[in-house]
Amino acid sequence: MLAGGKIGYGWIAVALAIISIGDEITTGSIVDTNSAWISDFMISKGIETMLHLSVPDNLTKITGALRTAQNRARIVIVSGGLGPTEDDMTTQAACRFFRVEPVLNQEALQAIEDRFRAIDREMTENNRKQAMIPEGAEVLQNPIGTAPGYALANKKALFFFVPGVPAECRRMIQNQVWPKIPEMEKNKKIFRSITLRTFGLTESQLDQYLSEIRFPTSVRIGFRAVFPEIHVKITASKRDEDAVEKNLARAKLSIYQKVGDYIYTDQELELEEVIGEILRARKKTLAIAESITGGLITKRITDIPGSSDYLLAGYITYSNQDKIKTLGVPKELIEQKGAVSSEVAKAMAESARKKAGANMAVSTTGIAGPTGGTSQKPMGTVHLALADESGTWERRFSFLRPERRQIRELAAEAGLEIIRRRLLGLKEPE
Amino acid sequence: MLAGGKIGYGWIAVALAIISIGDEITTGSIVDTNSAWISDFMISKGIETMLHLSVPDNLTKITGALRTAQNRARIVIVSGGLGPTEDDMTTQAACRFFRVEPVLNQEALQAIEDRFRAIDREMTENNRKQAMIPEGAEVLQNPIGTAPGYALANKKALFFFVPGVPAECRRMIQNQVWPKIPEMEKNKKIFRSITLRTFGLTESQLDQYLSEIRFPTSVRIGFRAVFPEIHVKITASKRDEDAVEKNLARAKLSIYQKVGDYIYTDQELELEEVIGEILRARKKTLAIAESITGGLITKRITDIPGSSDYLLAGYITYSNQDKIKTLGVPKELIEQKGAVSSEVAKAMAESARKKAGANMAVSTTGIAGPTGGTSQKPMGTVHLALADESGTWERRFSFLRPERRQIRELAAEAGLEIIRRRLLGLKEPE
Repeated sequence: MLAGGKIGYGWIAVALAIISIGDEITTGSIVDTNSAWISDFMISKGIETMLHLSVPDNLTKITGALRTAQNRARIVIVSGGLGPTEDDMTTQAACRFFRVEPVLNQEALQAIEDRFRAIDREMTENNRKQAMIPEGAEVLQNPIGTAPGYALANKKALFFFVPGVPAECRRMIQNQVWPKIPEMEKNKKIFRSITLRTFGLTESQLDQYLSEIRFPTSVRIGFRAVFPEIHVKITASKRDEDAVEKNLARAKLSIYQKVGDYIYTDQELELEEVIGEILRARKKTLAIAESITGGLITKRITDIPGSSDYLLAGYITYSNQDKIKTLGVPKELIEQKGAVSSEVAKAMAESARKKAGANMAVSTTGIAGPTGGTSQKPMGTVHLALADESGTWERRFSFLRPERRQIRELAAEAGLEIIRRRLLGLKEPE
Repeated sequence: MLAGGKIGYGWIAVALAIISIGDEITTGSIVDTNSAWISDFMISKGIETMLHLSVPDNLTKITGALRTAQNRARIVIVSGGLGPTEDDMTTQAACRFFRVEPVLNQEALQAIEDRFRAIDREMTENNRKQAMIPEGAEVLQNPIGTAPGYALANKKALFFFVPGVPAECRRMIQNQVWPKIPEMEKNKKIFRSITLRTFGLTESQLDQYLSEIRFPTSVRIGFRAVFPEIHVKITASKRDEDAVEKNLARAKLSIYQKVGDYIYTDQELELEEVIGEILRARKKTLAIAESITGGLITKRITDIPGSSDYLLAGYITYSNQDKIKTLGVPKELIEQKGAVSSEVAKAMAESARKKAGANMAVSTTGIAGPTGGTSQKPMGTVHLALADESGTWERRFSFLRPERRQIRELAAEAGLEIIRRRLLGLKEPE
């Protein structure tokens, strides 16, 4: 055990801080995915992250970040800046921060030499620099890259330094860092969470419904807008695993009782995957006729492996001409009612169903903008229809959003939701 | 000008700190993309980010982050935690930090009410909470969401609070935050950059081509993989604006000479926008016949406003049956050659062109996996064809990627690239 009794536990309530180092992060050239990955890994093990910090490759900034982190957390994971080149200065900063000298570590040097032999490349002088680690640090081997990591502790916190390359960072967190986290930090709390994915209610509407529920105090409810959906995350934390599961299940049940129709899954599944599973289980086939959504529904359905089992055809009849030619929508109907109308939506769905020989067909027509809106049919007006053996259902929606993209995504999601609700015998969305 | 002379400039060398707030970030449920976007935006304006910080939705953690940030930067941008629900506590934290009370802001309330009227939905009581902002703050309007932002200053820094929803955050940074940053913070260094978007070469291939070029020392070249594209960012920094522009232009010219065919734009445009502009300028029309890409090409083309001017029809013939019924591909051809074959790809493109009466049609057929591959036609085998007045071009691609999504995205991008190259008279992609 590296840290031994050196770390002053108990004086601070928080667990983990993560520092990502690199100009490429603070200039926005890349998105820092390591911090999210490490946090996700650690929370699955019961360790909460209290802080993410990113700073440029700069001595003062790095030591400043180390200082901030140790004042907020007992475990600090630092990624990045361990490369062989001039601009990598994490080790130099660590030495300054811990007031030690860099020393050539034979174990690290050996590993680097072995690695270069293995990939049959010549080792350069600056790769030797990567074997220089702060005096007193413990080496963390890096099986898939040249830069080793290391661990160091002071009175305030235990620090792990790993490379920034995502694959190397992740591998080392799992295999080198995790086993070295002191037992007393682990599993103090058990966290479990369930995410319910909803469509059709706003965040405030959901919040209002859910505010009528009395959840156990150990349960937290969080909302996340993943346009056009709202995801409701139920998290339970407790030292006793049985209670956690029971509290989660109870909270979930209460939420389903309030807004169950709007929840399409409690798993990590997309709406199109849920629909695919239902279609497959019920041996139903599907056709799609899209105008305003321009392929978005068909694209989402075919994102799913094996969708050719139930998707028979997608007709993207974007022009009036093509609605007439491909789907046989009567020209007079379009002239009299307009392409964006109940009648045309119904004709599209019915014709697509018949043409493809499918059990069910959904259609979309509308005005995505930015041009084409009128006072009677403003931008965001969308007609959706669904035809199956029981007849044809149709509804006009007003997706009054400022952006074309939003309107199209709402129309596609609503089209999918109509399929789901019809298949499950739920009432149609409003 | 909001900040006036209140901010104590000069005592600290750094410019911008960015704080992202939300449990979803520190638990790793989502990757924080806002910070990278804001940093990228700001550096293009000459403002360097010195620190990214993420903390959970927790009063103490948020005030702690505000304190850390103001000690390191003169401008602090805070995103997230402005939603209507219980777990959003950024405003409460801001009030505690600035020692002011939250007050109902009439301007903000009006905007929220207007917005709910505009999207024809009922406003709930907790949306009113979003109009409560710290006393003395200046409202920043949010044209595409309900949560307004606000700006506040103290002696150490100027703080901007914006929502965490990426589209809203970005819009507000551009339109509300940027104009309010004091002039003296701007343009201290001149950074200019151009991004060249490429498709068809790997990062190492590009790197090899570009390594033959001698760039001026003030020019930096960076690569960014935006699957399936590689974006090449040329950045020049210098205090003298003329030299910057000249160096950038020279670097760009050199790169075009090496790999010009692979660059579809030097602007912030998607490939489908570039194609749309060319089609419109040349008064050409397009039809699309998709099998493996399942609507992805048509969706991308119709993402662009006004695409109905040139897109005549999209046929998503996902099943063999539908290739026969909708496009009239001969049944025998599919039986003899297979649905994934040069012959069927050609027949699809030719038939789509004829059926839609378009100048040009592109088609895709292939094996996206995870099942359906054979030793002769492994997963990732894709045939693309393009038919126009000069005849039909066809090619087999091997997109040997492990993921269905990647294969479909590569196939769609290649399909679009074929259209672009044909329209411009460039050689077809390999």
